[in-house]
Amino acid sequence: MKPLPGFRDFHPAECARRDYILATWREVARRYGFVEYDGPVLESMALYEKKSGGELVGQLFDFEDKGERRVALRPEMTPTLARMVAARERDFKKPLKWFCCPQFFRYEKPQRGRGREFYQFNADIIGETSAAADAELIALAIDTLRAFGLTENDFVVRVSTRAEWAAFLEKRGRAERMAEFLAVIDKIERSQPEELAKQLQPFGVSLEEVRMELSKPAEQWETGAALLEDLHARGLTSFIQFDPRIVRGLAYYTGFVFEIFDRGLSERALAGGGRYDSLLSLISDGRVDLPALGFGMGDVVLGNMIDDTPAAAAKRDAWLAANRAIDGYIIVAQEDRRGEALALVQQLRDAGQRVDFPLTSAKVGKQFQTAEQLGAAWTVLIGDEWPLVKCKTLATRAEMLLPPEELLAHLSPPEISD
Amino acid sequence: MKPLPGFRDFHPAECARRDYILATWREVARRYGFVEYDGPVLESMALYEKKSGGELVGQLFDFEDKGERRVALRPEMTPTLARMVAARERDFKKPLKWFCCPQFFRYEKPQRGRGREFYQFNADIIGETSAAADAELIALAIDTLRAFGLTENDFVVRVSTRAEWAAFLEKRGRAERMAEFLAVIDKIERSQPEELAKQLQPFGVSLEEVRMELSKPAEQWETGAALLEDLHARGLTSFIQFDPRIVRGLAYYTGFVFEIFDRGLSERALAGGGRYDSLLSLISDGRVDLPALGFGMGDVVLGNMIDDTPAAAAKRDAWLAANRAIDGYIIVAQEDRRGEALALVQQLRDAGQRVDFPLTSAKVGKQFQTAEQLGAAWTVLIGDEWPLVKCKTLATRAEMLLPPEELLAHLSPPEISD
Repeated sequence: MKPLPGFRDFHPAECARRDYILATWREVARRYGFVEYDGPVLESMALYEKKSGGELVGQLFDFEDKGERRVALRPEMTPTLARMVAARERDFKKPLKWFCCPQFFRYEKPQRGRGREFYQFNADIIGETSAAADAELIALAIDTLRAFGLTENDFVVRVSTRAEWAAFLEKRGRAERMAEFLAVIDKIERSQPEELAKQLQPFGVSLEEVRMELSKPAEQWETGAALLEDLHARGLTSFIQFDPRIVRGLAYYTGFVFEIFDRGLSERALAGGGRYDSLLSLISDGRVDLPALGFGMGDVVLGNMIDDTPAAAAKRDAWLAANRAIDGYIIVAQEDRRGEALALVQQLRDAGQRVDFPLTSAKVGKQFQTAEQLGAAWTVLIGDEWPLVKCKTLATRAEMLLPPEELLAHLSPPEISD
Repeated sequence: MKPLPGFRDFHPAECARRDYILATWREVARRYGFVEYDGPVLESMALYEKKSGGELVGQLFDFEDKGERRVALRPEMTPTLARMVAARERDFKKPLKWFCCPQFFRYEKPQRGRGREFYQFNADIIGETSAAADAELIALAIDTLRAFGLTENDFVVRVSTRAEWAAFLEKRGRAERMAEFLAVIDKIERSQPEELAKQLQPFGVSLEEVRMELSKPAEQWETGAALLEDLHARGLTSFIQFDPRIVRGLAYYTGFVFEIFDRGLSERALAGGGRYDSLLSLISDGRVDLPALGFGMGDVVLGNMIDDTPAAAAKRDAWLAANRAIDGYIIVAQEDRRGEALALVQQLRDAGQRVDFPLTSAKVGKQFQTAEQLGAAWTVLIGDEWPLVKCKTLATRAEMLLPPEELLAHLSPPEISD
């Protein structure tokens, strides 16, 4: 009676929490002028093998379909995005600002914060090289987390750029060994100085030189000053920490990169992204050659962090309460008035109210209890007083007798969901 | 650069049309007091093999995962629903009124109105035997289509009940041959009388007897009178046609069944469902034994019908226009005011407005053009007039100079999406 290991069932309460995250992602993305797209859950395996590094190929849910095609459940969006942009590139004005909230599938060992499926907010800007695009993307990531009630006390955005490291190696004639070099930088915090000095030797680089580079202020990075100035104008610098040690695991990043961490002890990564100016060309076999940048933010770590952060949990719970299952409940106090009750239910629903009623006869007290359990804001009782009905506001217990045709004017307009 | 055969890409315009259908399904389901749930896209193959008939097993996208489990992409929701209800049955008050809008996967030959993936609105009532539940479900299906701007001129709900045919066979001592018998009834319209008489012989039934049964008024069916009376009170009888020939292909229906057809020449089935009182017990190996009923409505035939029905297409297009990408666009007329522009962008977005702006410097005329293309309702120009800004309503061309801090009061509140 359980789902597959690493997969989630979304019973109504869990589904509402998932929808809160998805609705908030969508709302903030739209505030930033991003438009939504989506692609297939299943893609040709070849699409994922093209991406340099192929980090995810070992974790694919891949198989052969009944038509003998090698296919895979999507583990990420960028290959699909590249394919979709390449297919209709001329139809869209640049820069594209596109987002989606797809579910991804990766065959990993399930653990806290990681299952075999998850939702991920993906936002990408395509066709723009300027640091203004980098800032717009970072600002969107920050405001998305702010929309969940998280503040600069809760998370930090660590920003770096691979361009600086590329120039650093170039100067030393070691540009071709970039990937290996970044792997050393990536582990710098966990390495002993002697060990590190030895690891740096093959690149003709001393530990001292690396330390100098690490302490270079961000204003001196190639696009650092422009990025900082932009984020400063938006009032978002308190969320930012420049940290050249952040290089990100994925091979395809070419410029600025960032990761967002929980400031708490857990130091969980909430989101990550950066600039990948060569990737679209690689995936599309040269059909589209556009600069691009993007980030991903998963629902699982974020959901755990909302649970653990009282202000964020309270904000979510307020949303869940406002998105209660129903607005009102019709109490059928006399079975022989069921016809009138049904007509009223229909009229209220037609007006957009969320209304429920007892499908079979039940005691009046029991019906009121059901109304409370379903989260109704009001009840309308049809009984002795007909042709008047008794409308009751459950929060205040205030009651009022009125003809059914005046009900709609009396009730507040239906709550807006997501 | 194409998706797999039978799969769809949702570029922004297509994604918005998909979202219109999903948002409308959700809105109407909630009006009826249904709550949303969802399950995994991938399930154990065994779950689908349990269902009697196993009609869909031949169309599964099934494979063995890296943990040697036989798994399949979901082709329908009922097995997952049964599994989820069985897992936590005691947590929920009956009757359950649950809905979902999942994507399903079936390996079929792609053709108009049918791909290898589609979305389907599923609504189920669990734990209620009365005809009032049957009526509630049919009313939801009708009101869902009405919400798309479709009327009784566009579609018809054909209602039947298997209970009558079961009683008919029982009387003749042939109850055990129900499935075969319904297969004959299902093809009754397409069969010649002589052929039909021959097909009926094994059941000890004459063509005359079947004709008598077919002409029996619905009020005389076991639950027909109650169903009719309920739908009449709701004012929905003009959508209904009682037709005992509708028996539905799937083996597991036990009581009333219905199908909704386009009234046009194409006679496409828009939705179908019915009562399946034994299925939950079957799928859950007896863990849950609750009466149940439900229907499914796919997005593809519905989408085609909206395209083909002018009033429905107009209603969709109005929704799409109201859900435009942005509310406003900030015109940066002087590059040295970019900092002030960014601050304003941030302030407006924080207030929930959907705002875009040029990431790099562009001529003012070009910026206005972009604003129009993106569907902005207003522009705010930052330039010579600083510290005042020029706010323009694009529809009326009305302009106004004001300090930026007064902008928010001047602009209408942001449009509500979905």
